[in-house]
Amino acid sequence: MKKITKSQGRSSRYRTLREEAFEANKQLPQLGLVLFTFGNVSAADRKEGVFAIKPSGVPYEELTPARMVVVDFEGKVVEGKLRPSSDTKTHAVLYKHWQEIGGISHTHSTYATAWSQALKDIPVYGTTHADHTTVDIPCTLPMSDAMISGDYEFQTGFQIMECLRERNLRYTDLEMILVGSHAPFTWGSTSSKAVYNSAVLESIARMAFLTEAINPGAVRIKESLLRKHFDRKHGPDAYYGQ
Amino acid sequence: MKKITKSQGRSSRYRTLREEAFEANKQLPQLGLVLFTFGNVSAADRKEGVFAIKPSGVPYEELTPARMVVVDFEGKVVEGKLRPSSDTKTHAVLYKHWQEIGGISHTHSTYATAWSQALKDIPVYGTTHADHTTVDIPCTLPMSDAMISGDYEFQTGFQIMECLRERNLRYTDLEMILVGSHAPFTWGSTSSKAVYNSAVLESIARMAFLTEAINPGAVRIKESLLRKHFDRKHGPDAYYGQ
Amino acid sequence: MKKITKSQGRSSRYRTLREEAFEANKQLPQLGLVLFTFGNVSAADRKEGVFAIKPSGVPYEELTPARMVVVDFEGKVVEGKLRPSSDTKTHAVLYKHWQEIGGISHTHSTYATAWSQALKDIPVYGTTHADHTTVDIPCTLPMSDAMISGDYEFQTGFQIMECLRERNLRYTDLEMILVGSHAPFTWGSTSSKAVYNSAVLESIARMAFLTEAINPGAVRIKESLLRKHFDRKHGPDAYYGQ
Amino acid sequence: MKKITKSQGRSSRYRTLREEAFEANKQLPQLGLVLFTFGNVSAADRKEGVFAIKPSGVPYEELTPARMVVVDFEGKVVEGKLRPSSDTKTHAVLYKHWQEIGGISHTHSTYATAWSQALKDIPVYGTTHADHTTVDIPCTLPMSDAMISGDYEFQTGFQIMECLRERNLRYTDLEMILVGSHAPFTWGSTSSKAVYNSAVLESIARMAFLTEAINPGAVRIKESLLRKHFDRKHGPDAYYGQ
Repeated sequence: MKKITKSQGRSSRYRTLREEAFEANKQLPQLGLVLFTFGNVSAADRKEGVFAIKPSGVPYEELTPARMVVVDFEGKVVEGKLRPSSDTKTHAVLYKHWQEIGGISHTHSTYATAWSQALKDIPVYGTTHADHTTVDIPCTLPMSDAMISGDYEFQTGFQIMECLRERNLRYTDLEMILVGSHAPFTWGSTSSKAVYNSAVLESIARMAFLTEAINPGAVRIKESLLRKHFDRKHGPDAYYGQ
Repeated sequence: MKKITKSQGRSSRYRTLREEAFEANKQLPQLGLVLFTFGNVSAADRKEGVFAIKPSGVPYEELTPARMVVVDFEGKVVEGKLRPSSDTKTHAVLYKHWQEIGGISHTHSTYATAWSQALKDIPVYGTTHADHTTVDIPCTLPMSDAMISGDYEFQTGFQIMECLRERNLRYTDLEMILVGSHAPFTWGSTSSKAVYNSAVLESIARMAFLTEAINPGAVRIKESLLRKHFDRKHGPDAYYGQ
Repeated sequence: MKKITKSQGRSSRYRTLREEAFEANKQLPQLGLVLFTFGNVSAADRKEGVFAIKPSGVPYEELTPARMVVVDFEGKVVEGKLRPSSDTKTHAVLYKHWQEIGGISHTHSTYATAWSQALKDIPVYGTTHADHTTVDIPCTLPMSDAMISGDYEFQTGFQIMECLRERNLRYTDLEMILVGSHAPFTWGSTSSKAVYNSAVLESIARMAFLTEAINPGAVRIKESLLRKHFDRKHGPDAYYGQ
Repeated sequence: MKKITKSQGRSSRYRTLREEAFEANKQLPQLGLVLFTFGNVSAADRKEGVFAIKPSGVPYEELTPARMVVVDFEGKVVEGKLRPSSDTKTHAVLYKHWQEIGGISHTHSTYATAWSQALKDIPVYGTTHADHTTVDIPCTLPMSDAMISGDYEFQTGFQIMECLRERNLRYTDLEMILVGSHAPFTWGSTSSKAVYNSAVLESIARMAFLTEAINPGAVRIKESLLRKHFDRKHGPDAYYGQ
């Protein structure tokens, strides 16, 4: 009897978190961002020092809140019967080092992945991009052989952080990145915002591809317009939204 | 009691207009022209000197007629509890100066936005384009720094008007334009027609991209065929439709 | 009373034909081949010497069998309250001269229209194409000014026939063509087959665009393989289908 | 009475197999991989030495388990009233020579077919590809005239095997191939896995096309990363999935 009570207690402790992660993961196929079991979203509970993430290799239509796996910021499973996403340690590293994020999303969405494979940053060509960040979306260098043969998924987290450091960017300056030869990761204050960013990135990536195809000499949006669009949504005097 | 009556009176005064704007906005996601909260449509009541427009940052699935915001042609809110679209002043300027339009639509649809970002006009390559206008779809120059740092959304309206003036075009010669580094605006006699034009522009933009990809030396449709197609739909002896 | 009887008799005379045309037209939006009111399909009754066609400018969701317009092979309306498609005379010319066809379909589908605007034939690159015809899909030259200023839609029919004549092709050798600067027309033994051909052409056009984008030096499918695929579906010893 | 019993016996013998093949075929249109009657999937029963395959030229919406055709590994029909897919002998050859596969899928999916028509291998540009195989997806040379004029569909099977042999690859090294000027074939331990591979190949083909369009000088994923991704899913210490 005690054990059941304890188990129920443990279960309810993270119920809300698992439900949040479940809802966020369900959005990926609805937004056309994933095929089969590809991709994964996590939602963090900062007070508890844990996050809930998609189980590895499970189709989206078979997900339930109970199947989400709860993991701490070292990447250790805290609760859940299934094995967590193979990318779990990448999420753990980012949660551990980036204090203000509450959600992470990883997809192999078509256009963002193509830019990752092309090893090219996505230039900021217009206001759709500027509405979300003022900088090009960086594409990391391929990982070193030593990092790959080490703890690969942990290293992917460090690879992402190192790319931002090299470019003198903070994780609050932009909420999306391309991992070279791999695919995008996005983040945000909540898991829902991270998924939103995955969809925005896919849209930006597609438009940038078309912009260059239409005009191979396309130039970046001018600085003043870039700043104006970002600030009207995110600046101190923002007037977008309610 | 009086106040309630008055409020109801005011509310019913614009009820039809708000419903029209609501219906037109709902078409944008149905036609695949918007992601999340991007884009906005307005519907004008010329007699009342106002237009109803989408509230800022509200997802399309949460829209109701009551949530539409009624604004006058100076850009001042007349009725509505929510903040209007951040692009409201652009709509206001165009309604004020263009006497014959009853609706305006703004999207970040993929192909039209790519042409905007490429800073290129869309050449009239075929009859799909010629069925709607006889001229290339203009792309405005990027706005000057002075205009951007001024009242940006008002200036976007003037930027659009200036672009037509430079090319010696009237707003009745075409009902769509690309704002450079930004995205398209379309208009028409009603908000429904404006949305129709957004979808037509996206189709034209996509076909023109493909036309140039298939044949980098593609040439414009010949003048006589261009004129024939436009006139059979819009000329004095038009015989298209019922 | 007599008049009503007569009218009913006349109505039932073409009921089956109007229903066939209605069903075929309804397939166009289902197959993603049309936007709004664009496009039109007709179905012919050879014994009666007439065809039923979509009314002009009517959205597909508002079509009913009763709204189809019955027209003779000179392009004269025989039955129906609505104005027939503006492309009706093109259909009439082809029915009059091509004895064995029972249906015609006209769309502005994206990829086929892009090839039309590019004024380029679609080379036969693979078996998907070869399963349907052994020749490149021809793109007609733009029409002469004299033809355009004459009876334009009749002339479009002659333009199509002239293009086949120049290339020494019979209308039974292929069931699809690109009208230069305009869009595709397809035909077949029935209206349903004509619509099928519109969808096949769109698929072929898209794949051919991608083939050239992937390999600018792409070459046509070899003659023996081309012939094999066509013959296994359409030759004297065909073994495809039931 | 005896005959009915016998027939029922024969029928139930392959019932499960026919149902498996039916379910796998139904997935093709759901995954957007086929148009009309194009494509076909088969499921093998190794103990019985037979496979069930789609009947030729039948639309997917008209398929039932009973309409699947049961064929032996020589390509001879064992059970079924309908004619089997025209590609049946290609399936038979592969089942006969490749002992470990239980399903085969053939589509004319857009991007994979475009690479086939371009006669180009799909380079392994990223982890989406590396998650499934460590090698480029080969495109076979066009078949010789002698093979085409022989037993074409049998020869297609040998063409596929010969292509792997030339490149020193086993059919377990990769589960997908492009037949030059034609379209892709995929296989796997079950028919469901074969269909899964068809969808994965289409995704890989699309991303590779975009990768080269974005960066004409794109390079393959580095060997260590390629190996890491493949091994975490398929190596002796795989940790992907449950």
